[in-house]
Amino acid sequence: MADAPRPPRIPRNRDDDYTAEMAADRARFAAAQTGAPLDHVTKGTIDPALLKGNCENFFGVAQVPIGLAGPLEIDGEHAKGPFYIPLATTEGTLVASYNRGMRLLSEVGGVKTTVIERYMQRAPVFHFANARDARAFGEWVADHEADIRTAAEATTTVGQLHHIQRFQVAQMCFLRFNYLTGDAAGQNMSGKATYAACEWIAEHAPGQPWYTLSGAIDTDKKHSHMNMLHSRGARVVAEVTIPDAVMQAMMGPSNAKLFRGRLVSNAGGMLAGTVNNGMHAANGLTALFIATGQDVANISESHAAITFVELLPNGDYYWSITIPSLIVATYGGGTGLPTQRECLEMLGCYGKGKVEKFAEICAATVLAGEISLAAAVQHGDWVSSHDRYGRNRP
Amino acid sequence: MADAPRPPRIPRNRDDDYTAEMAADRARFAAAQTGAPLDHVTKGTIDPALLKGNCENFFGVAQVPIGLAGPLEIDGEHAKGPFYIPLATTEGTLVASYNRGMRLLSEVGGVKTTVIERYMQRAPVFHFANARDARAFGEWVADHEADIRTAAEATTTVGQLHHIQRFQVAQMCFLRFNYLTGDAAGQNMSGKATYAACEWIAEHAPGQPWYTLSGAIDTDKKHSHMNMLHSRGARVVAEVTIPDAVMQAMMGPSNAKLFRGRLVSNAGGMLAGTVNNGMHAANGLTALFIATGQDVANISESHAAITFVELLPNGDYYWSITIPSLIVATYGGGTGLPTQRECLEMLGCYGKGKVEKFAEICAATVLAGEISLAAAVQHGDWVSSHDRYGRNRP
Amino acid sequence: MADAPRPPRIPRNRDDDYTAEMAADRARFAAAQTGAPLDHVTKGTIDPALLKGNCENFFGVAQVPIGLAGPLEIDGEHAKGPFYIPLATTEGTLVASYNRGMRLLSEVGGVKTTVIERYMQRAPVFHFANARDARAFGEWVADHEADIRTAAEATTTVGQLHHIQRFQVAQMCFLRFNYLTGDAAGQNMSGKATYAACEWIAEHAPGQPWYTLSGAIDTDKKHSHMNMLHSRGARVVAEVTIPDAVMQAMMGPSNAKLFRGRLVSNAGGMLAGTVNNGMHAANGLTALFIATGQDVANISESHAAITFVELLPNGDYYWSITIPSLIVATYGGGTGLPTQRECLEMLGCYGKGKVEKFAEICAATVLAGEISLAAAVQHGDWVSSHDRYGRNRP
Amino acid sequence: MADAPRPPRIPRNRDDDYTAEMAADRARFAAAQTGAPLDHVTKGTIDPALLKGNCENFFGVAQVPIGLAGPLEIDGEHAKGPFYIPLATTEGTLVASYNRGMRLLSEVGGVKTTVIERYMQRAPVFHFANARDARAFGEWVADHEADIRTAAEATTTVGQLHHIQRFQVAQMCFLRFNYLTGDAAGQNMSGKATYAACEWIAEHAPGQPWYTLSGAIDTDKKHSHMNMLHSRGARVVAEVTIPDAVMQAMMGPSNAKLFRGRLVSNAGGMLAGTVNNGMHAANGLTALFIATGQDVANISESHAAITFVELLPNGDYYWSITIPSLIVATYGGGTGLPTQRECLEMLGCYGKGKVEKFAEICAATVLAGEISLAAAVQHGDWVSSHDRYGRNRP
Repeated sequence: MADAPRPPRIPRNRDDDYTAEMAADRARFAAAQTGAPLDHVTKGTIDPALLKGNCENFFGVAQVPIGLAGPLEIDGEHAKGPFYIPLATTEGTLVASYNRGMRLLSEVGGVKTTVIERYMQRAPVFHFANARDARAFGEWVADHEADIRTAAEATTTVGQLHHIQRFQVAQMCFLRFNYLTGDAAGQNMSGKATYAACEWIAEHAPGQPWYTLSGAIDTDKKHSHMNMLHSRGARVVAEVTIPDAVMQAMMGPSNAKLFRGRLVSNAGGMLAGTVNNGMHAANGLTALFIATGQDVANISESHAAITFVELLPNGDYYWSITIPSLIVATYGGGTGLPTQRECLEMLGCYGKGKVEKFAEICAATVLAGEISLAAAVQHGDWVSSHDRYGRNRP
Repeated sequence: MADAPRPPRIPRNRDDDYTAEMAADRARFAAAQTGAPLDHVTKGTIDPALLKGNCENFFGVAQVPIGLAGPLEIDGEHAKGPFYIPLATTEGTLVASYNRGMRLLSEVGGVKTTVIERYMQRAPVFHFANARDARAFGEWVADHEADIRTAAEATTTVGQLHHIQRFQVAQMCFLRFNYLTGDAAGQNMSGKATYAACEWIAEHAPGQPWYTLSGAIDTDKKHSHMNMLHSRGARVVAEVTIPDAVMQAMMGPSNAKLFRGRLVSNAGGMLAGTVNNGMHAANGLTALFIATGQDVANISESHAAITFVELLPNGDYYWSITIPSLIVATYGGGTGLPTQRECLEMLGCYGKGKVEKFAEICAATVLAGEISLAAAVQHGDWVSSHDRYGRNRP
Repeated sequence: MADAPRPPRIPRNRDDDYTAEMAADRARFAAAQTGAPLDHVTKGTIDPALLKGNCENFFGVAQVPIGLAGPLEIDGEHAKGPFYIPLATTEGTLVASYNRGMRLLSEVGGVKTTVIERYMQRAPVFHFANARDARAFGEWVADHEADIRTAAEATTTVGQLHHIQRFQVAQMCFLRFNYLTGDAAGQNMSGKATYAACEWIAEHAPGQPWYTLSGAIDTDKKHSHMNMLHSRGARVVAEVTIPDAVMQAMMGPSNAKLFRGRLVSNAGGMLAGTVNNGMHAANGLTALFIATGQDVANISESHAAITFVELLPNGDYYWSITIPSLIVATYGGGTGLPTQRECLEMLGCYGKGKVEKFAEICAATVLAGEISLAAAVQHGDWVSSHDRYGRNRP
Repeated sequence: MADAPRPPRIPRNRDDDYTAEMAADRARFAAAQTGAPLDHVTKGTIDPALLKGNCENFFGVAQVPIGLAGPLEIDGEHAKGPFYIPLATTEGTLVASYNRGMRLLSEVGGVKTTVIERYMQRAPVFHFANARDARAFGEWVADHEADIRTAAEATTTVGQLHHIQRFQVAQMCFLRFNYLTGDAAGQNMSGKATYAACEWIAEHAPGQPWYTLSGAIDTDKKHSHMNMLHSRGARVVAEVTIPDAVMQAMMGPSNAKLFRGRLVSNAGGMLAGTVNNGMHAANGLTALFIATGQDVANISESHAAITFVELLPNGDYYWSITIPSLIVATYGGGTGLPTQRECLEMLGCYGKGKVEKFAEICAATVLAGEISLAAAVQHGDWVSSHDRYGRNRP
């Protein structure tokens, strides 16, 4: 390998790399190096100048088909009325299945959505000679929150430092900074503010402690129980109550049958050690995220959820899903790119002041998919066991 | 709400819905209902006829910008040599950061990749009157694996039932069917085969037991510890050994500094209860998944990983990442759509016989991103603490 | 500190340390060094000669009060009929509460108990130069299970190597040896047999791989999800069906009220990230373990459990608890000491051939405590909300 | 079964059940019913009158042998100097192994111990019609903390309500009350105070919400990630730095070898999904808990721990263990019983003002056991691989 000629480097233009020429250059380069035809990848309509801050070494676009689902009636605080939802996916049945759930939700008057709280975090760790020093530092931080807030908020016009959590392991004091971040998801804003806060701390705290900007407890781009408890992004609830007659007419299985299936899923979920005792929140969220220019990698965090249901004395079924770490934005990141912005505009969610509305739409969409898939699983089962074997277990 | 006129339903054509006319119809409908301009969404080059089985109610495309990263030298069993990686993302710095890691990996001779095993699962649950009957059923299943395999494999020309796991809770016996699925991710194949197997079991097992096709322990589209242990999709390892001089020259921090950061991250990860003690596998995987037509919702499962490192006596740094549930395909699903196929072809991974190669490329890409981000975190820290305050902690 | 005189060392007799004289010597020493009167600690009736293999540096006994609970009617495969249960505890209400649950269980015909499977593990890890070598080793192990079994079983007259599981992370192959261990808990037996197996492997496997006898996945003396799935010790189910009238008459709350409380507990348990979604299995198990000479530290593993319930159409309540890692013995360890043996004899569980019976009694006892405490929580709530505020929520 | 004569009920005396006569009565009853000789169980020296509040239906004592370990040099804030530790156990080698670790710790100047914080919890859940009402309630609670504190603290002379945490799932608001509880473990104190607080809330909060006193997130008597993060009982750190020469001389393996074993254990622990990445904290804690009258069932919570180590540039080994949920008391519960009190007195820990001291002793003891077992595992490995096969892996 040492003697092999180095494979060529990707063309770049240091003066201005975000041009149609450079994109075409790289596409030709990629085609030449790999032998792949790039006829479709190069057919995008994005002005490369828009991509500064979105995509380095740009050379083409992935075209992900978008299906239309809805109308979905939402009874939120921010999202109100019927919505048509763009879902970007290549998985057959996904759009149809969510669509089916949306019909049911709309039929029963819509899904109620509530954003409980919404924060973004950065969590540095400060290092000490021993546990006692780390504990003293934690107390110092508690006594200096106002100064720390000033240092953090000096870096941002939008972000506000809401509160700081402290956790100690060994001789380390982990801090978890929680920010209000407006309509941006806020990872960068939180990072920059926390860096400034840490620099202030490192200068002013006794002993000028040494720190690492991320101590791994913010768990950016990965699920953690921390975030199940403490809401990275929006903590949103979607809930609905469904009469048995409607459920059976539109979905097949009875509420009682679905409810029993839920009990089994709770046990199975605990056995498996899952981070989501529901059905497939990731499906709807991913399709919405791709369509609307969200940071799709946040599915790792956003797909966690707790399903809580009740079969009410009158036979109605209360069905809720709580998504504790829904990381979304209506401003910044990929939200301003052409197709992404159009899809946000379909939802009336483009730009500032829209992020809670969008979070509610996400949660409502997820609930539609939960009901649809759960009913399909139970109905298939019902077919197989009831029809064929004549047994009539709920 | 009862008296409000119903919002209109989405146009569909029962005879043939996958046409340019229907797509345009729906785009007009969506624009009219929502007031959103859909100028870019409608500029895709996908023939709607291709989308049967991929996207219902198709009306346009999301254009996700793709950046080019590489060359990435891979020393795999299936992927060998330099690769140029298409990363579809709207997150600034992502491509640049992975690219930086790839330069380092290539400099040290490439990243070694190994697919340990690869299965897809469907996990039904069988219900009994009591725990003793469930236990007896489990033993019956063990005694009839050959018959069950025959029933399952009759539904597929590709899939093979590799083994069945059993887990009991209360009066339920959960079975976890593990399939070899060729170059498809195989969720549908596994579902169909397991359904046939369950029907056979329900007919032949004593008492004709009642079952549910999914008992929630397969944890499709959600992370679980089950899958961390038992490999849903490919279990892949990427590993490399990096001399200290190269690390410092190309990345800034020393191996010793990075290593200490890793110890802290391990502790932070355990404190937080994370499913990935590494940096940000989800970033690279999501970008690759979107570009190549993978089921992106599987990021929920595929983002879990275990980082294991060693600082060797000679100062070299052994760095590995084990991805236990990498769910990928090079055939079926969205892999055959125009831009998606082109990106797979850039990697020499389109079609049959390519899935292990693609899994290796995924893991290698992830490792590049791990190194790059870890070094950036430590370097920033080093700047802030070392340069400014003159302390020289590794 | 360097100049301080060393505190004296504890008296030992290298020839025979397990004598009344040595015990008295040490008791005098401890009293002299600490100033504590040791009037009661020294009043035990254990012959120190019995303690070889149980307790080094013996100097006295802890007297833990034992309360009597029962009769508890058990409908097990091994435990049949009414049992009087000795519970060693200092926690007020514990015995009374379990006793109350036992009355209910006996009233409805007893609790059904089933041992699903029972294994003990030792899990070494083998180290390799890279992941590919580790994978090849795993395959080699699969091909040589018979030889490995022979090597392992040569060390024991009782133990049988049932199966070996394999898990790979990075360049390491973790093996998890599962043994049948007769009436002993079997940790030592498993350790010794696995050591012999590893030595055989290290000699015969290609490259003579290097290993560590415990790679931390057996998780001896600590809970793990591994053991929730894969049964360290006995996996036991206790289950019962309780008519609503009996529940209300004996416990207060209705089945419906208890059931709703269970739904809430499932959600709370998932939120908290608990390893036991039930009430307090640890209480009854600990009291039984202390009384009967079990290794009480195994409470860390044995306290995990999954509660699964159903409210049946006729209003009856199906209540089950599955304990996946109940580590118990009726032979070896502390089971032969005077008071411990007497308590085992009260249960007809002393000696060989009794361990499944004892496991069933443990599970039945746990279920009694679950019902009693759950009812108390719901009843208190009912009192506070219903009686005082006139609301009548189930 | 219906016609079988009921087995007789256990003798009780409603006027005064805590007498020697009643104990003897019950012992005779137990012996008669079960056929077990109860010669040793009945030889205790506890005055039954002491057991009111400790053990209902008292009939005898379990005699658990106690071994003496130490001296253990502790450099705590509360525990200072050499200690002789009573360990009640029936597990051979436990006392010897801890003793070995204590020698090492004492040799290097003692173990540093620090109590970071200490709380006890009760966590009720309030139920609402929908998520929005639950959110409003949460805000109401935040606005009324002073009143809630007054209500809670009216029930106790010792306890102080430190802070209230809030977590929402679906239409439920979980509150987690954190108390300072003096020298008692404080579960009962916390329960009573929280009950009073909840009654006040249920009366004063808008809509007079309905609640359950435990919503399952306090996870009493079971491990949870909640408590790993949020310290149920004492969060204690024990730490030490050990020169390589001392380690090798006293334990066998080098620091480097132990350190590499730690890296493997971290990976294995993550793979297994364990709640303690260390060795066997449960062993030492259980033995100390039995000896000193702690609530031994709390081992379920107290055995969780995070080990964090560093191999320092000079070859020294920094070794720490953080126990986040160490639930201990020096007052109340079983601490005042005869042998239990004597063992606390051996440690200078009986009575009020001693609980931090005792927590430090517990953590120091645990660290001794960690080092001893880890060294034994690595040394055995070293023997097997190095001596026999001539390889010299650290």
